[in-house]
Amino acid sequence: MAKTAVVALGGNALTREGQAGSYEEMEANANVMARSVASLLRAGWRVVVVHGNGPQVGNLAIQQEEGTRLVPAQPLFSLGAMTEGQLGSLIVLALRRVSDAGGMRGAVAVVTNVAVNPDDPAFENPTKFIGPFLTKEEAESMAAERGWVVRKDSNRGYRRVVPSPEPVAILETAAIRALVEQGQVVVAAGGGGVPVVRYKSGYGGVDAVIDKDYAAQLLATSLPADALVLVTGVDTVLLHYGTPQQKAIHEMAVTQAEHYLETGEFPDGSMGPKVRAAIRFLRSGGEQAVITSPELVYASLQGTISELEGVTGTRIVRVKPLIATAP
Amino acid sequence: MAKTAVVALGGNALTREGQAGSYEEMEANANVMARSVASLLRAGWRVVVVHGNGPQVGNLAIQQEEGTRLVPAQPLFSLGAMTEGQLGSLIVLALRRVSDAGGMRGAVAVVTNVAVNPDDPAFENPTKFIGPFLTKEEAESMAAERGWVVRKDSNRGYRRVVPSPEPVAILETAAIRALVEQGQVVVAAGGGGVPVVRYKSGYGGVDAVIDKDYAAQLLATSLPADALVLVTGVDTVLLHYGTPQQKAIHEMAVTQAEHYLETGEFPDGSMGPKVRAAIRFLRSGGEQAVITSPELVYASLQGTISELEGVTGTRIVRVKPLIATAP
Repeated sequence: MAKTAVVALGGNALTREGQAGSYEEMEANANVMARSVASLLRAGWRVVVVHGNGPQVGNLAIQQEEGTRLVPAQPLFSLGAMTEGQLGSLIVLALRRVSDAGGMRGAVAVVTNVAVNPDDPAFENPTKFIGPFLTKEEAESMAAERGWVVRKDSNRGYRRVVPSPEPVAILETAAIRALVEQGQVVVAAGGGGVPVVRYKSGYGGVDAVIDKDYAAQLLATSLPADALVLVTGVDTVLLHYGTPQQKAIHEMAVTQAEHYLETGEFPDGSMGPKVRAAIRFLRSGGEQAVITSPELVYASLQGTISELEGVTGTRIVRVKPLIATAP
Repeated sequence: MAKTAVVALGGNALTREGQAGSYEEMEANANVMARSVASLLRAGWRVVVVHGNGPQVGNLAIQQEEGTRLVPAQPLFSLGAMTEGQLGSLIVLALRRVSDAGGMRGAVAVVTNVAVNPDDPAFENPTKFIGPFLTKEEAESMAAERGWVVRKDSNRGYRRVVPSPEPVAILETAAIRALVEQGQVVVAAGGGGVPVVRYKSGYGGVDAVIDKDYAAQLLATSLPADALVLVTGVDTVLLHYGTPQQKAIHEMAVTQAEHYLETGEFPDGSMGPKVRAAIRFLRSGGEQAVITSPELVYASLQGTISELEGVTGTRIVRVKPLIATAP
């Protein structure tokens, strides 16, 4: 039985630092990403890709605002849905270009709606910056006109902040599972999914942005998948970051990860959410979580199969049982 | 074994004549549409929904153009992909609100890429108007700047015209089939699907808009589905339209439909594509095609099961064999 990996990739992997976000740029980046996924497929893994959408939804939001003179702006959650279509199509086409990869019977993007709790404290305390930088005057006028919450972001200006609530259920889980079982590479929960809350009449969208690493974890736990791979800009998680004691971690038990998280080794703005997602996955029955760069995804995951030596990313694993059970 | 119907709904069913296209308007319209689909589910049909995206992709295009001062505009095919995400999420949420409907195990929107032939004559002769009306000067400047083809649309101004090539293959057919078999209501090929052509390196997007009725037919034939339902603004197909001899057709054989199409009864700008899609579906092995208003979808399709009397839309059926075969 093939094992399943949920691979979470940042929106920055599609629109890189310094790029404007043209289709051609994203397409070239998606081709690189697809080759990384292909290496996993060839090794026998089934793969679900969860992508971020930060730069893309930010660009869409600008275009929406610029266009309001003529047509109504869509709500933020609907822009999230748009990026699921936009990037889903783009990534599926890139995956098809490497479709000689063993075991891939096709690739398909599923528009994913993700339930959040309307009482999530994040709604009272929006923290996620989105969209363009504004002057103080612009920010105040947007706040008055549209009820936006705006905050100073570093010293580059003001930006809209939106709630980033915890994902509690992925509405399309059964459909995604059916597609994985059919041998499809599935692109799902893009941008963390479209955030929805349960009203009396049913689910409806809510303006928020779900952390895509948390959404990937929930999907990995719900399927369930065997591995959660959190792809980032660095090869490994670093301990004592920025000090003379800084060192790379190649493997740690979930209890160690919990300890380091509690002692503030992984701040919220950087590794925190990834380590937390990894811990949640393992604590909910997952086998292994990997945090690494695109280049080391294959070696890091395969290390667990073939026990290869050499450079890998950071693997976080459940503690081995102290007492072996008789066979 | 449950029968499958592919139901094609116009983008105008989501943003109605005179509406600006706000999310709230589309949501209310989607709820009405969902109740119509629910009536089919209760009668035991499996349903695939194909939606149009004319008004929505037009609005997105305006916003993209207005925003180019700050961020790059995405190509037209990618805007089509965005509307698959936007409307897919919206329709799925509406379907879930009627999920007491018998047999629905869930609803899911699949981002669908649809192959077209790069040699399709439509690329030499773009006919499909999209986006806002422009002045002659604006149109000429867009043509020079971006290579757009622009044409006069009635006497309201100039608009961009894009090719509307024939769909030749739906890349996600196997995935859609697997989901239908699992009991999901599937939203697919929205806006006719993202048009792609096969390059040496694989499929890539191409700026075009595929007719959603033709895409629905190809999907219905490929699955295969038992019925193709083309939902429109009128209850039935009309013969001798606008003359004293005008009359509603409630049932016709495929040969009659072909005859009327040839004699110019159904012009390209109105019923032509729907009747042609119906004919293609039946000529490729389909059982029945229905052209009707949202209100009569249920009665029109059920008529074939329970032989109910009363008002129905237009059913187009294969000719009954002249010589009955022995049982």
